Amino acid sequence: MKSLNFGDHIEITTKNQSLKGIYINSPKKDVIILKKNSGYNMGVNKKDIKKIKVVKKASKAKKVKGKGSIKTNKKLPNITILKIGGTIVSKLDYSTGAVSAKITAEELLENIPELRKIANINYKDIASIMSESMRFSHYNLIAKEIQKEIKKNKNLKGIIIPHGTDTLHYTSSALSFMLENINIPIILVGSQRSSDRGSSDSFINLTCAAQFIAKTDFKGVAICMHEDISDDTCLILPGTKTNKIHTSRRDAFKSINTQPIARVDYFKNKIDFLTKNYNKFYDESKKINTKYFKDNLKVGILKSHSNIHPENISAFKNYKGLILEGTGLGHFPTKSFDPLSKVNEKNRKEIERLIKKNCVVILTSQCTYGRVNMNIYTPGRELIELGIVPGKDMTTETAFIKLAFLLSNYKKEQVKSLFKENLRGEISERILPHEFVDY
Amino acid sequence: MKSLNFGDHIEITTKNQSLKGIYINSPKKDVIILKKNSGYNMGVNKKDIKKIKVVKKASKAKKVKGKGSIKTNKKLPNITILKIGGTIVSKLDYSTGAVSAKITAEELLENIPELRKIANINYKDIASIMSESMRFSHYNLIAKEIQKEIKKNKNLKGIIIPHGTDTLHYTSSALSFMLENINIPIILVGSQRSSDRGSSDSFINLTCAAQFIAKTDFKGVAICMHEDISDDTCLILPGTKTNKIHTSRRDAFKSINTQPIARVDYFKNKIDFLTKNYNKFYDESKKINTKYFKDNLKVGILKSHSNIHPENISAFKNYKGLILEGTGLGHFPTKSFDPLSKVNEKNRKEIERLIKKNCVVILTSQCTYGRVNMNIYTPGRELIELGIVPGKDMTTETAFIKLAFLLSNYKKEQVKSLFKENLRGEISERILPHEFVDY
Repeated sequence: MKSLNFGDHIEITTKNQSLKGIYINSPKKDVIILKKNSGYNMGVNKKDIKKIKVVKKASKAKKVKGKGSIKTNKKLPNITILKIGGTIVSKLDYSTGAVSAKITAEELLENIPELRKIANINYKDIASIMSESMRFSHYNLIAKEIQKEIKKNKNLKGIIIPHGTDTLHYTSSALSFMLENINIPIILVGSQRSSDRGSSDSFINLTCAAQFIAKTDFKGVAICMHEDISDDTCLILPGTKTNKIHTSRRDAFKSINTQPIARVDYFKNKIDFLTKNYNKFYDESKKINTKYFKDNLKVGILKSHSNIHPENISAFKNYKGLILEGTGLGHFPTKSFDPLSKVNEKNRKEIERLIKKNCVVILTSQCTYGRVNMNIYTPGRELIELGIVPGKDMTTETAFIKLAFLLSNYKKEQVKSLFKENLRGEISERILPHEFVDY
Repeated sequence: MKSLNFGDHIEITTKNQSLKGIYINSPKKDVIILKKNSGYNMGVNKKDIKKIKVVKKASKAKKVKGKGSIKTNKKLPNITILKIGGTIVSKLDYSTGAVSAKITAEELLENIPELRKIANINYKDIASIMSESMRFSHYNLIAKEIQKEIKKNKNLKGIIIPHGTDTLHYTSSALSFMLENINIPIILVGSQRSSDRGSSDSFINLTCAAQFIAKTDFKGVAICMHEDISDDTCLILPGTKTNKIHTSRRDAFKSINTQPIARVDYFKNKIDFLTKNYNKFYDESKKINTKYFKDNLKVGILKSHSNIHPENISAFKNYKGLILEGTGLGHFPTKSFDPLSKVNEKNRKEIERLIKKNCVVILTSQCTYGRVNMNIYTPGRELIELGIVPGKDMTTETAFIKLAFLLSNYKKEQVKSLFKENLRGEISERILPHEFVDY
């Protein structure tokens, strides 16, 4: 076997096929990983290889260790990568067959030579956590690191945050609310396949995020993920109006009740804006105003279902805030219509008790799409009279983060009034034709 | 103003237009309601009407009161309508402007003359409840009424159940599990606009349900709702694999991780089956085997989110079952990766405690689509070791109903093993191409 160097353009011949691509580092000794033109990596077992031809030697790049930058070119914009964790920085543990978050930002970069052509990349590992385990304190950590990077680097064009997909949309909402008047793009990037896999979407998602940052005047927090199951385009999705609606597809992230911000064509390196006035929450005359979460704040989510018992509600008696994820247009079982539904009256009393104990109660819908409208049906009106605040067309996830953010920073009455305001694009102001709000 | 009779074909001339349709009863004295060819009703203010022409007098129909049938024709199949409640049987209260479930099955039928051409209709009001308030005891009530109807009427071709949309999919799951080996179609029908509104979808949804029942050999529980925003077609959706994914659209109901059972073309009165082998859970050699829910059984849903506190889990300490609606492929914050995520260890201990106290704990995903796969990531594997049962590709709503149904009828170990089995089509057995389960 020839001695190959990272970045060599090679051609591999096996029994069945001939494969061209760039040689990149492999996590497994007996496998060669080839980065193909599509941006995807492919693993080939060394024992299946008949011949390897070096088509073009790699151009020499400085070798770096720890945090730092790969290469500096004054003509290129500066991007910082702040690594949190997730599948995008995970690799397979060959002893257990499971995947865990162990790749450093440096290793990740080594496998994406394209990024060096787009920007000067600084990188820093700030955590190695699977995103389902993230807490408010992690949002505070990320916001602080973002502040540091902005202070340190006056010419910073933007920040990319590799992050697990499970709660990517919770974090993008959190950063949107925390980083008021942020003056650069903060792009969260995940992947649905770990970066050591041939079919990983991490390379294209990261490259599209860098392409977008390099070319855009967008200021704010957004998500960059695959648009569909092809590898041609990624979408830049709004930080406060995006949800993960599929467990495993690469295009699992969809904007909810609104358009994506932009489309990035990976091969053409081209940006198409799909949202007008995308900087409407940025005010040039003001500075960044960062607010944080209270680490141990208790805010809950209670998903409505049939046969809810009053103790399910009273469990939140020490909570400062509660999202009721209701059904349909914003309903919750608090009304009796017949002897069989009498228990519901007790549910209403428990909600009354929470509200009297100063818990802010919000109602969202478990329908993925659409708007809460509690004025149409009599039971909905009665919930408003109880003091429940309608969540408009916010997703449950964004409503939860917004409520926790407001409770961390404001007094109760202000929380209730700010919750109804559109602070970071989390509420659609225009009525979309597909909503059919003809009531 | 001429004296008009229900069913008269009329032509109305106003200042701006000429309208043709069938005269039907109006809930408002100063408004005439016209049933148009599209199946939709339209209200015209009497004061705007210049001329009314009776094109064709209504054929005389027997007037009936209370429960009963509109007309008997031995050539037509027999369908029973069991009314529960919901928007489909709601009308506007002109004093408050709100909508509530007050229309009887009889009134509903009066406004849909088409139904008389399709079948002999028996109807019965069994409740008047908005569906968000339904409890397990209502599922028992419906199942008992279905049994009665089947016993009473040996030539019964099928049953239509007008039901609120908020928890229509919970009820369809519940009836699917309860009515093992049911030998007729039980079709739940909702509407997103109340039946006294010109734009109501109730007429087309009900008519399509009757068209389907009249022509089909399908045996089981399904939902009939608009396929898209046009009025041409309805879908027959699987009882255990359907969700309401929009708060207000008429096509809010979608089959999840599977195809719809059939498409009904309203204008052509034509059925296209989209699922093969749709009667695979029906065994001709066996009788209907109905099992019920325990009315006061405590089963909960806990939706995962960032910053979950252990007391949010211990609140379920007296519950027999708990659905953890996790993130992504089936994760829950039970692991610490750094000092900031240490609280998660306490969450894991609380789950361990629940399981030791004989609570059956299931993990589903808050992603609408896709399959739970807890074997990919290390934290997921650790949850399985704790004794958590993966919810496969069931929706959270169906998993909740299935768990409650099994806990009502079986012992704990049987519940855990039956939960993994595909009892009524609630688990997709084939791997769909869009799932990309390439791990």
